[in-house]
Amino acid sequence: MNKFVGSLFRLLKGEYSNAWKPRWSSAKYEIMVITAEDIEKFDKRYRVNLINALTGFSPANLIGTRNRRGKPNLAMFSSLVHIGSNPPLMGFINRPDTVARHTLENIRETGTFTVNHVHQSFLSEAHQTSARYPEEVSEFTVTGLTPEFFGEFTAPFVNEAVIKIGLRFREEIKIELNGTHLIIGEIDNIRIPDSFISDEGRPDLERAGSLVVSGLDAYFVSRLVGKFAYAKPEGFAERLE
Amino acid sequence: MNKFVGSLFRLLKGEYSNAWKPRWSSAKYEIMVITAEDIEKFDKRYRVNLINALTGFSPANLIGTRNRRGKPNLAMFSSLVHIGSNPPLMGFINRPDTVARHTLENIRETGTFTVNHVHQSFLSEAHQTSARYPEEVSEFTVTGLTPEFFGEFTAPFVNEAVIKIGLRFREEIKIELNGTHLIIGEIDNIRIPDSFISDEGRPDLERAGSLVVSGLDAYFVSRLVGKFAYAKPEGFAERLE
Repeated sequence: MNKFVGSLFRLLKGEYSNAWKPRWSSAKYEIMVITAEDIEKFDKRYRVNLINALTGFSPANLIGTRNRRGKPNLAMFSSLVHIGSNPPLMGFINRPDTVARHTLENIRETGTFTVNHVHQSFLSEAHQTSARYPEEVSEFTVTGLTPEFFGEFTAPFVNEAVIKIGLRFREEIKIELNGTHLIIGEIDNIRIPDSFISDEGRPDLERAGSLVVSGLDAYFVSRLVGKFAYAKPEGFAERLE
Repeated sequence: MNKFVGSLFRLLKGEYSNAWKPRWSSAKYEIMVITAEDIEKFDKRYRVNLINALTGFSPANLIGTRNRRGKPNLAMFSSLVHIGSNPPLMGFINRPDTVARHTLENIRETGTFTVNHVHQSFLSEAHQTSARYPEEVSEFTVTGLTPEFFGEFTAPFVNEAVIKIGLRFREEIKIELNGTHLIIGEIDNIRIPDSFISDEGRPDLERAGSLVVSGLDAYFVSRLVGKFAYAKPEGFAERLE
């Protein structure tokens, strides 16, 4: 009864617009239970498709680098993760046995890389960077994306990206469980249209049209469904949008 | 001219539907250049808002745990990242100085955790788990989300989530740069409606309505804009959808 009064109160305050929407119920569906043994038995492609997507939608970013001879490289990554704001750090998971190895080698050689958000306007080109080109081929050249350089920062940005970040390599952590690496960079510079940042510092990713990816080949735009105040223990956080 | 012919060829093949769409051009906007020195000078809230969102939209997940006395805990995380498919590994970044410390302590104590996708139907409740409740309070109780247990697996699942994964703790890697940890688990079991997985093993995240988050408080649904064949160096990958 208390719960009902609480929900009604929140509904009247407009804080809790989902209060009376029907919930998804597992009872309506036949639930597939997949065990560790099942996963081991799946064929490689099925397993990759399934496991890759289970973390949920991931951000689609192009990582730009140059090797010591100045040759630019560009590769799609869906494993970028926020590490911290002070110092400003972001990281990504790199598999040494894939096309992405050039990215890691270049970062080790020259110490910088760029992160460039992917948008619909150059999606085909961005996806195409995931092909296994030989080292001497620049993905900028084959896709037609435009490399952009600023000052003395050595790594190439993608001109077509609305939001782009230049980073200095800080740490490489080997994950012994499967031989991948967590590559961490510290933000050196950010380029974003003035009008895309709110007064509180929030970049408008929806307006920028920054894409997310599911698995390795399906790309999505995102639309706001809820914005909340900072949650405190005293009651449900106010719904702002 | 070659580039024009190439684009026309791709357009005729229907592989490259963006060929004639106008690109976003930085020339149309006043670009804000933010340096490392600027970032250091920003006030804390501005810096957090900005840096948190720069990786792009992140997946919204609830991580469920129990401590050794059996008390359930549930917390929102936006830092989940795919580590590998064989063995099936996923990880997340945990800040020991935040509300999320209970999650880390519980995982260390009991060795299991669950990942539960967040959907619109319980978004207010999911967001509310980010409040700093004392250790003895279960976020399940205060939000009304329903804990669900299966067999001998000790960590609680969120009944309301369409896609949920049980993991065994495998490794904790300290990131010395800022004192955060990368917590890695190996998938023990997956629960997903049978009809939400394709014959190739792809979970349909759009149909499940799995949300993404920007910063710490804005949530988004995602809609497919492009699906491509595996990219090969011989030419632009075919656009399937």
